[in-house]
Amino acid sequence: MARIEARLAELGITLPAPLTLPPGMALPFPWVNVRGDRAYISGHGPQQSDGSGAGPFGAVGGSVTVEQAYGSARKVALSMLGSLKRELGDLDRIIGWCRVHGMINCVPSFTQTPAVMNGFTDLILDVFGAEIGQHARTAVGVCGLPMDFPVEIEAEVTIRS
Amino acid sequence: MARIEARLAELGITLPAPLTLPPGMALPFPWVNVRGDRAYISGHGPQQSDGSGAGPFGAVGGSVTVEQAYGSARKVALSMLGSLKRELGDLDRIIGWCRVHGMINCVPSFTQTPAVMNGFTDLILDVFGAEIGQHARTAVGVCGLPMDFPVEIEAEVTIRS
Amino acid sequence: MARIEARLAELGITLPAPLTLPPGMALPFPWVNVRGDRAYISGHGPQQSDGSGAGPFGAVGGSVTVEQAYGSARKVALSMLGSLKRELGDLDRIIGWCRVHGMINCVPSFTQTPAVMNGFTDLILDVFGAEIGQHARTAVGVCGLPMDFPVEIEAEVTIRS
Repeated sequence: MARIEARLAELGITLPAPLTLPPGMALPFPWVNVRGDRAYISGHGPQQSDGSGAGPFGAVGGSVTVEQAYGSARKVALSMLGSLKRELGDLDRIIGWCRVHGMINCVPSFTQTPAVMNGFTDLILDVFGAEIGQHARTAVGVCGLPMDFPVEIEAEVTIRS
Repeated sequence: MARIEARLAELGITLPAPLTLPPGMALPFPWVNVRGDRAYISGHGPQQSDGSGAGPFGAVGGSVTVEQAYGSARKVALSMLGSLKRELGDLDRIIGWCRVHGMINCVPSFTQTPAVMNGFTDLILDVFGAEIGQHARTAVGVCGLPMDFPVEIEAEVTIRS
Repeated sequence: MARIEARLAELGITLPAPLTLPPGMALPFPWVNVRGDRAYISGHGPQQSDGSGAGPFGAVGGSVTVEQAYGSARKVALSMLGSLKRELGDLDRIIGWCRVHGMINCVPSFTQTPAVMNGFTDLILDVFGAEIGQHARTAVGVCGLPMDFPVEIEAEVTIRS
């Protein structure tokens, strides 16, 4: 078994199915776009195991707590790993995380965006380890996200051909 | 005639002139910055054919409708192609779209950002086709943009030297 | 003395110490993440010379003026150069700025984000010159940033191995 798959199994993690879209929603782009040795990862939200969007929905600092949003950010990492697995075939092809841009749907003047994003970073480091998993990161508060997700994250990784 | 130029002519598309800035506005950066085999594209807004900013202006979900903003996002694609044409000389040098980051000026809790961004993606796919045109994408709602544009988009493409 | 170091000395600029975090804040990621010939730079805020966060804090267009935020953006450039110096050892290893993504904490419908970001761009061009310093740029208004900074900026540079 591949190394990252083995680690996911060890942690008891199952990756979710592809995002199921609400009626009338069209997303004419891939979740992962490979160009040369880089995989560009579209903005992902939290998903349930069947691929449907995972709540809670809404703005952090409003109806969603920081603790809940930490859990949502962790789920975003799993959504992303699911997309990467489907696109790359083997998650061991990821040889380095490059950048991670986290967008937190929040009330005005919210400042706890890093505490939310740690849900993503903690999972990636736990699965990939410090060397491959390490990434430059931004955590910004925004006023609207698709499907009213509390968190959406885009990223870039470098891969083995 | 180059392939992409021919496709634009076929679609009846003319690319706009460079953005004309309002009095007192200074933008000390290029619209496209080439480094090696990558062209990094600055945030672009919708422009009229003479280069002036194209309305409607304001927040989507407020004074601007989703349908209007779809049209604005399509215009942003044309602004970007105009900048790329001026920088690269030949749009056929673009061998792959990498990532596209769309920012939608919107009212709080707006969720239809993907429907807006489809105006950009639909045009790029129509002009470049599925293989070269495909891009990773993010659509985020923000609370302010330069010139009160409803949409601003930044991107990255890989190019032939 | 290295070229960029000499230029900083000429301008009378001292780079700040690493960001000191408020109690309870954990940032499990590096400020600069090198992958191949690219250095990915995490979102930075303005810092004082001892590394503590530099005010004013809050939303531009509200309690913070555009002029003050221009100064904050300039300080962000210095924070970033401090991180790059610590990671790369020698700032002369930077052979080209690629992209710069500026996030301005602002009141709704704020439009002067480019005037704020010029504080960053003016400093980078002054230190690195037009060829190496030139960067693609985006300036977006957001509704929340870590530590209530008025400006946060992420970037990417290409480096000599």
